[in-house]
Amino acid sequence: MPALDFPEEVKVLVAHLKRLPGVGPKSAERIAVWLLAQDGGFSAGLADSVRAAAEGVRACPDCGFFASASRGCQLCADPARERSTLCVVEQPTDVLPLERTGAFKGGYLCLGGKIAPLENIGPEDLRIGALVARLGGGEVSEVILGVGSDVEGEATANYLAELLAVRFPEVAVSRLAQGLPAGGGLDNADELTLFRALDGRRRMGG
Amino acid sequence: MPALDFPEEVKVLVAHLKRLPGVGPKSAERIAVWLLAQDGGFSAGLADSVRAAAEGVRACPDCGFFASASRGCQLCADPARERSTLCVVEQPTDVLPLERTGAFKGGYLCLGGKIAPLENIGPEDLRIGALVARLGGGEVSEVILGVGSDVEGEATANYLAELLAVRFPEVAVSRLAQGLPAGGGLDNADELTLFRALDGRRRMGG
Repeated sequence: MPALDFPEEVKVLVAHLKRLPGVGPKSAERIAVWLLAQDGGFSAGLADSVRAAAEGVRACPDCGFFASASRGCQLCADPARERSTLCVVEQPTDVLPLERTGAFKGGYLCLGGKIAPLENIGPEDLRIGALVARLGGGEVSEVILGVGSDVEGEATANYLAELLAVRFPEVAVSRLAQGLPAGGGLDNADELTLFRALDGRRRMGG
Repeated sequence: MPALDFPEEVKVLVAHLKRLPGVGPKSAERIAVWLLAQDGGFSAGLADSVRAAAEGVRACPDCGFFASASRGCQLCADPARERSTLCVVEQPTDVLPLERTGAFKGGYLCLGGKIAPLENIGPEDLRIGALVARLGGGEVSEVILGVGSDVEGEATANYLAELLAVRFPEVAVSRLAQGLPAGGGLDNADELTLFRALDGRRRMGG
């Protein structure tokens, strides 16, 4: 009798689940147990949704947003978007939060990540060719770097700012403001946030 | 033009992913982005593994361990297991860690959870009927309660100990020891762990 083990199907399922980002070996087992405790309909739906997304959705080669294989990229297809401003974000999932503000009507370009030497992600892994191609079109006069305020976001913003200053000196490059988040008191803000809030202070009235 | 949104396939995928235990809305989006950045082979493999596990694996009605639809329950089929001792655990995933100790040769019964009033899980949601049926067979002389040492594990152990004392007074019921984990200094142990380690101290030598 071999040593007791999970059935092959469970081992294969756990092996797949633990490769997902943020899912470790323990979480993968917990998810597998949970899935097997549901009625089969949920697993079938999950399997179908994974397959349908993989087959029906790709990154838009121009802007990096999700593009439906059948209906194309909703972002690039929208004639109402201002072509003069371009917001550069890390991931396609960063686009909707910015859209919800209603404060930006321009285009987006999703880099597909950020420069992270520790994870072996360099500029060549990002969608920088598409960014250069877009700016080369000559319609964009302002680029907003909508990357995060962590170390990797910082590195990515600095890299892009230098690159754009050399290649497209006529294009204005800005970055999202850093400072106190809405609703936060000073006692909740960390030192770096306060430093940046002070550094970026804006003159009022007068 | 409707408001910008993810393609339908991505929305359906995220909706499924965020129902998984330990996966919130943000993680679901991160996993979806990650999946779409892989080549299609991984998503196909994941989808297949989810479907194969849901279709090919069920909980063994006798012991609650994973049973392959084609090959049955490896645990119940093993003639070498001692029928006199039974270890009651919460989940099928608790079985392999106990097996790896090599210190237990008896049978297992997986409850399928633990009593958790805050999550609306009562004794009637656990595999207690199967436990009673197994003990009713008369072969088991010792039950080890292999449940966790959290509040819900505590409640489950107490509930089962009382139930078994009434229904099967001839069966010895024990619980896994609680105390210092291996390799831990006293300075790393919390108060409750130390209390239980003191309480369960074992006489040496002599």
